[in-house]
Amino acid sequence: MLTEKLTMLTDFYQLTMMQGYYKSNRADKTAVFDLFYRANPSGSGYAVFAGLEQAIRYIENLRFTNSDLEYLRSLNIFDSSFLEALSGLSFTGEIYALPEGSVMFAAEPIVRVKARLIEAQLIETALLTILNHQSLIATKAARVCYAAEGDPVLEFGLRRAQGPDAGVYGARAAVIGGCAATSNVLAGQMFDIAVKGTHGHSWVMTFGDEYEAFKTYADCFGDSLTLLVDTYNTVKSGVPNAIRVFQEKRAAGSLPANYGIRLDSGDLAYLSKKARKMLDDAGFPDAKITASSDLDEFLISQLKLQGAKINVWGVGTNLITSGDCPSFGGVYKLSAIEGEGGVLVPKLKISENPAKVTIPGVKKLLRFYDKASGKIKADLIALADENFPENEDLTIFDPNATWRRMTLKAGEYTVREMLEPVFAGGKRVHKPKTVAQLREYCQTEKNSLWDEYRRLVNPHVLPVDLSLKLFNLKEKMMNE
Amino acid sequence: MLTEKLTMLTDFYQLTMMQGYYKSNRADKTAVFDLFYRANPSGSGYAVFAGLEQAIRYIENLRFTNSDLEYLRSLNIFDSSFLEALSGLSFTGEIYALPEGSVMFAAEPIVRVKARLIEAQLIETALLTILNHQSLIATKAARVCYAAEGDPVLEFGLRRAQGPDAGVYGARAAVIGGCAATSNVLAGQMFDIAVKGTHGHSWVMTFGDEYEAFKTYADCFGDSLTLLVDTYNTVKSGVPNAIRVFQEKRAAGSLPANYGIRLDSGDLAYLSKKARKMLDDAGFPDAKITASSDLDEFLISQLKLQGAKINVWGVGTNLITSGDCPSFGGVYKLSAIEGEGGVLVPKLKISENPAKVTIPGVKKLLRFYDKASGKIKADLIALADENFPENEDLTIFDPNATWRRMTLKAGEYTVREMLEPVFAGGKRVHKPKTVAQLREYCQTEKNSLWDEYRRLVNPHVLPVDLSLKLFNLKEKMMNE
Repeated sequence: MLTEKLTMLTDFYQLTMMQGYYKSNRADKTAVFDLFYRANPSGSGYAVFAGLEQAIRYIENLRFTNSDLEYLRSLNIFDSSFLEALSGLSFTGEIYALPEGSVMFAAEPIVRVKARLIEAQLIETALLTILNHQSLIATKAARVCYAAEGDPVLEFGLRRAQGPDAGVYGARAAVIGGCAATSNVLAGQMFDIAVKGTHGHSWVMTFGDEYEAFKTYADCFGDSLTLLVDTYNTVKSGVPNAIRVFQEKRAAGSLPANYGIRLDSGDLAYLSKKARKMLDDAGFPDAKITASSDLDEFLISQLKLQGAKINVWGVGTNLITSGDCPSFGGVYKLSAIEGEGGVLVPKLKISENPAKVTIPGVKKLLRFYDKASGKIKADLIALADENFPENEDLTIFDPNATWRRMTLKAGEYTVREMLEPVFAGGKRVHKPKTVAQLREYCQTEKNSLWDEYRRLVNPHVLPVDLSLKLFNLKEKMMNE
Repeated sequence: MLTEKLTMLTDFYQLTMMQGYYKSNRADKTAVFDLFYRANPSGSGYAVFAGLEQAIRYIENLRFTNSDLEYLRSLNIFDSSFLEALSGLSFTGEIYALPEGSVMFAAEPIVRVKARLIEAQLIETALLTILNHQSLIATKAARVCYAAEGDPVLEFGLRRAQGPDAGVYGARAAVIGGCAATSNVLAGQMFDIAVKGTHGHSWVMTFGDEYEAFKTYADCFGDSLTLLVDTYNTVKSGVPNAIRVFQEKRAAGSLPANYGIRLDSGDLAYLSKKARKMLDDAGFPDAKITASSDLDEFLISQLKLQGAKINVWGVGTNLITSGDCPSFGGVYKLSAIEGEGGVLVPKLKISENPAKVTIPGVKKLLRFYDKASGKIKADLIALADENFPENEDLTIFDPNATWRRMTLKAGEYTVREMLEPVFAGGKRVHKPKTVAQLREYCQTEKNSLWDEYRRLVNPHVLPVDLSLKLFNLKEKMMNE
């Protein structure tokens, strides 16, 4: 999405359906769609919502150009009158969404679109493409950073990203999810995020020997100095040559405060401990050790357990592609449509798979926090017009196991409405935030989770409850 | 890459290395880099090369803008003289590459760049991003189409793609790899490839009942008619309602030649057989059954084995993300650099992992075909100045198992030089091809593989040999 004109980035069936709505005089009916997902990626206990800013810009720029319409005409499927209608189409509806960087859970409405049916249908695909992708990577980044226990994590994956956008917006999402910086220069430029990097193997190989390569590099850069020590042999040549250069720089009074080595192959537990000892023995206890090479949250966690002496983690392929789970299953389903007399009629999709039955009606999402700890107690999906005053006890229940109940005591909890207005009357009403702000907000969001929900493997599952009114509506509609 | 101006799409360390080369007076040295990969994705016996056209356009458009240079200056790492050098930089070198759509094997040089060191270094990241992504998806598509045994495969994955580019260029690559069409309208428009789609669940849900939804849809579209039958209950309501509409259309003389149903959930083996029988019994034996829902090459293969009655396969998430293997491991390594007197000196990277030792020198790739069958016998990596006349017997050997030898008899084989010129003196010398042409070429390429190399699981491995001269050069350099 290095351009924001993505009107044609849609599935063909959206256009055939739109023509169908148009020809059957249904295009202008008000429809409500929910965007939600059914399972967290990578076995996570939560996910991080990202990509909202790009989704907003896509919708702001929604407009068929003449060449778009010419192309559609050339397919001999669309009527002139429908194409005429498309030529004037823009988004005129209302959108509510989670704030970008929020933590979220399966089944929750995270975006709610209310618009003319023809508009709401068109935007399904691109909304999903953008939000699924960035939420996937932000969630993976949050997991990787959790494994790194506060050490900086650098996003290093551009060359293995699924195309340029995946690299650039993946880097953005990774930083929102918690990464400290990226190697991706374009992402740095576009989003004002820190860029990091030192040199590669080719730098060393262009020289006669490794020492000469290190020395030349050190002479070229004054402010920080990280030497990649595994081009030939990490222990026998890389680390000793790096130490020699550090000694010379220190003797010359020009060793920068931020200096160290990078390991990019071999066994990182063994090599980092070995290198740490060599650096310490040589008088460089503050030299940093950066490691990269097929890292993910599980390997970082294992390396930490084995006492690896790594200060900075460069994570590439498995972060930028979410290697173990490369897709986020966001879906977009009709929940209500205008019926007789302009009333919104709730709709649901039945499925033989109970998890795929949708939740009908125009809904909101409430989050209940424990007042003392600030941690999330439960999320509740309710009808948009329901109210839950904080000064009353509230008993909520799990819709899939109705005997599992929890009573929130007045005074011991706070409640927050999670969906915020993003578009009203077709106009953006959401103020853009910097990626740095989103990262900081995401940090507070992650802190609102009990540690049990953040465990990398088999985490505890937060109860996402339905209000009694909504539960009854769904049951009634399913029985009909 | 919806824009082609991707000069800043690079890893930060490329820029620091470039400044290092510049400051140490090495920027203008001629360097040779090979792009290759070490393992086929998804356990495949081969891969498909894709993305070349986008890689070429990226290089043609290589140019730092003033705002790029301003951004780099703001980082306080780069000298004014270096930034000045960047401001005039464009690609002036030579590139050879496989034709797009070729089949390829691990370790082979698939792109060879010879250019000023500073230029060759800059383009590493974006070349890899573009070629890794499209080769990944083209390879997956080739596997999925192989499993479908000639049935049309439709690319349906946009909403789960890793961002807009991944959707658009992924669709392009999927068609090169063998898909018949995509649901992605923008990809259809950009690359003149067929777009397909019908309606979704929301279409059905906006109506009072399913029959009414089907009938209205059928009335809106004359030329082809595919009804999605699983919104409520496939067997009890979806298929019967579709049959009722087909009967009415036939009675009215308006049933199009291309009509049928789509299954999108449930057990596709059971439901397709059941639906086939219902359609046949109702007098619609030529109604097509399209299926989608978490398909990949393995599931398609299993469904085929179980006699599923599916005519068209819509493959989404697992194709557009290459679900079981979401990255392609292409790398870009220095193989030679200008030394004393302008001579190119071969270079190699040693590694404790033998598979990671690079192949030194300026190389070419030869492919030997069996004259009788047209199938590939072997690939050979040789030094660029070596010749292998077709009218002589040739004995080649596996560099990893030198006792494995094969003698190609004169008259029984043909030989082909695989790398073709793409850039010469900084100018594009490669004529663009349409995606339709690339798809057709890829089909002949896939046909040049023995079936044993195309098996989805544990395929036979093609011998990729080194010429004796190249083998000896590598051995000599490793021993030094």
